[in-house]
Amino acid sequence: MGLIVQKFGGTSVASPKHIENVAAKVAATRAAGSDVVVVVSAMSGETNRLLALAHDISRRPLPRELDVLLATGEQVTIALLSIALEKIGLEARSYTGGQVRILTDNSFNKARIVDIDANRIHKDLAEKRIVVVAGFQGIDEEGNITTLGRGGSDTTAVALAAALKADECQIYTDVDGVYTTDPRVVPDARRLDRLTYEEMLEMASLGAKVLQIRSVEFASKYNVPVRVLSSFAEGPGTLVTKEDEGMEQALISGIAFNRDEAKLTIRGVPDQPGVAFGILGPIGQANIEVDMIIQNVSKEGTTDFTFTVHRNDLDRGLEILQRTAQQLGAREVSGDERIVKISVVGVGMRSHAGIASTMFEVLAKERINIQMISTSEIKISVVVDEKYLELAVRALHEAFGLDQTPA
Amino acid sequence: MGLIVQKFGGTSVASPKHIENVAAKVAATRAAGSDVVVVVSAMSGETNRLLALAHDISRRPLPRELDVLLATGEQVTIALLSIALEKIGLEARSYTGGQVRILTDNSFNKARIVDIDANRIHKDLAEKRIVVVAGFQGIDEEGNITTLGRGGSDTTAVALAAALKADECQIYTDVDGVYTTDPRVVPDARRLDRLTYEEMLEMASLGAKVLQIRSVEFASKYNVPVRVLSSFAEGPGTLVTKEDEGMEQALISGIAFNRDEAKLTIRGVPDQPGVAFGILGPIGQANIEVDMIIQNVSKEGTTDFTFTVHRNDLDRGLEILQRTAQQLGAREVSGDERIVKISVVGVGMRSHAGIASTMFEVLAKERINIQMISTSEIKISVVVDEKYLELAVRALHEAFGLDQTPA
Repeated sequence: MGLIVQKFGGTSVASPKHIENVAAKVAATRAAGSDVVVVVSAMSGETNRLLALAHDISRRPLPRELDVLLATGEQVTIALLSIALEKIGLEARSYTGGQVRILTDNSFNKARIVDIDANRIHKDLAEKRIVVVAGFQGIDEEGNITTLGRGGSDTTAVALAAALKADECQIYTDVDGVYTTDPRVVPDARRLDRLTYEEMLEMASLGAKVLQIRSVEFASKYNVPVRVLSSFAEGPGTLVTKEDEGMEQALISGIAFNRDEAKLTIRGVPDQPGVAFGILGPIGQANIEVDMIIQNVSKEGTTDFTFTVHRNDLDRGLEILQRTAQQLGAREVSGDERIVKISVVGVGMRSHAGIASTMFEVLAKERINIQMISTSEIKISVVVDEKYLELAVRALHEAFGLDQTPA
Repeated sequence: MGLIVQKFGGTSVASPKHIENVAAKVAATRAAGSDVVVVVSAMSGETNRLLALAHDISRRPLPRELDVLLATGEQVTIALLSIALEKIGLEARSYTGGQVRILTDNSFNKARIVDIDANRIHKDLAEKRIVVVAGFQGIDEEGNITTLGRGGSDTTAVALAAALKADECQIYTDVDGVYTTDPRVVPDARRLDRLTYEEMLEMASLGAKVLQIRSVEFASKYNVPVRVLSSFAEGPGTLVTKEDEGMEQALISGIAFNRDEAKLTIRGVPDQPGVAFGILGPIGQANIEVDMIIQNVSKEGTTDFTFTVHRNDLDRGLEILQRTAQQLGAREVSGDERIVKISVVGVGMRSHAGIASTMFEVLAKERINIQMISTSEIKISVVVDEKYLELAVRALHEAFGLDQTPA
């Protein structure tokens, strides 16, 4: 294959020994005839060590300086990996985000990539060098160092692959691909050979933490084929691409779940125009992200309103909701963190009716009460009591035939 | 005062707490009305930690990548110091060597500064910001990260002071100035208020490890006043400047000594043209630096030849010398590491005769045998048995009146 971008995360480069293993993987790809650009994260633990130093000095370190500090993490890794590559006879050259240059906006700590200058890298590749790039970081128009925020190395890799028109972007992680669901919950879970960007996005945002969401959006926008592979095992991994007609059209690709949410309910709210904004406005102002939202039909002039937030935001959300309840004259407020969101995901859903009814039927048969429902074009999510998580996921996995290899 | 460049070394920024102390010192300088540019080293221990990582992977890491790796050390410190400055209400901005930009040649691991772009810093100073610059590092014309070699942060500070036309370059260390000699050997040793560049160079190269030699050469070339101060104590320190007529003209400024040398002797060498090259050529080819050289007058057609090298090079030097002795038909070869070099230094020496004879008289009176002698315009060095070190230095210190404050 022509050009491959390979990305290795923090656990894959955790020690000099790990870094030598990464060098061996890169060498194998090169030996198979590809040019290689490698993107690496900071050694695992390093970012937290640096953050601790900053927080020893200030509770709110300057965002600009925090990026100067954190960017050193990946810079250490690119140097060490280049040294390891040279040791096994491959000419290598490292670049920081600024050196490439990966131009970003100036939003320190969460910058977005604006442009990538591919010239320098193309020149090195033409001279048969392996190019090693620091993930997670860039430089703004004034030459300030910026970082893309946690998980930004995936985005760097995909963006580089797009800029270099690479044939594939390979993301090495500690799992060997994307599964139909979590194998720890369903031993029969099967690694998927292929998946569409949309499915991957739904799987990722629903708690299957394989790829960073922004990187998948980026890959989808620039149509970069992304392959998820294991740093620690051999195998073809899972290829994430756009939907194409020749693709195996499974009804459902996978079942995702998320244990990190909590449910907030406000009951007996006088039903009047603007009530949703009255309730969610203060929540949004407190920077609490809301996921699912349900408003029941009005009953005797009042309505019940339920939404989910991250579990870490439950207490703060409850406080705000209590104040809102007083202002609006609502009857009561409650919170519940013993919930789980389960979603079935698949682009095949678009052309097949009956997925929802099958899902509800399976859960009913297992006597699992559904607390909330939300749907999109390619997924259906339900919230249930968290004690039913394993039961529900296994039943759905079997009902949709996910344990069977497609013909 | 207008503009001051302050440099803090590794022990001054060893921890977040130390860095906050540095911030307080900077704030005090600023409060006294000066603009401040700060140059910092890596936190002590950090450079060695990084080197150990590289050496875990390769015994001979790539020089280019070693610089990418080591440059992160100072980058961490500039970020932390900027955070500490902002915490106490001073607007600060950090710059790596590449960001400034400090242009160097492309000799990785021992680059030399070619040019400094002062624009960005002047702009920040005009906006009343404290500018924090990473010492020890730069960037070459192709944008590669370079480092100046150990101790290079002093050079960065002096070069910046020259480029910015600063009023003074303050080097903060763990001693409160330059002393007439080592106070651990002579309790009466006195801190010098002033010293010339030449004297400082002789003192530094003779083993008084206060300032890095290259930085003093740089300061001398661009006439930058350098002040040596303590990070841990108050006081005016020692000001190093060019010689000026109004300056107190002590005969002798100080007594330096160096315990790191060893003596090599080859006896009974047939005396013929080219014998010095025949002996020292192979030594030089082995990259062993030679300091003092003495050749005795010829006696019965043979001569004796003695020179000093660093103690670490003694064994290697002996081996080479043994081979040389066989080739040249010399009688015998010997080595001695129980020696010390003691030097009296002072620009006043130029205009005063008799320094040498005073020195030899003092040593004779103490019955200390002189093994080698070498002189320059502003210093006289002798090699003696190391057991006489304290005795010799104390006697000379007293004889030249160094314990007396000059009138």
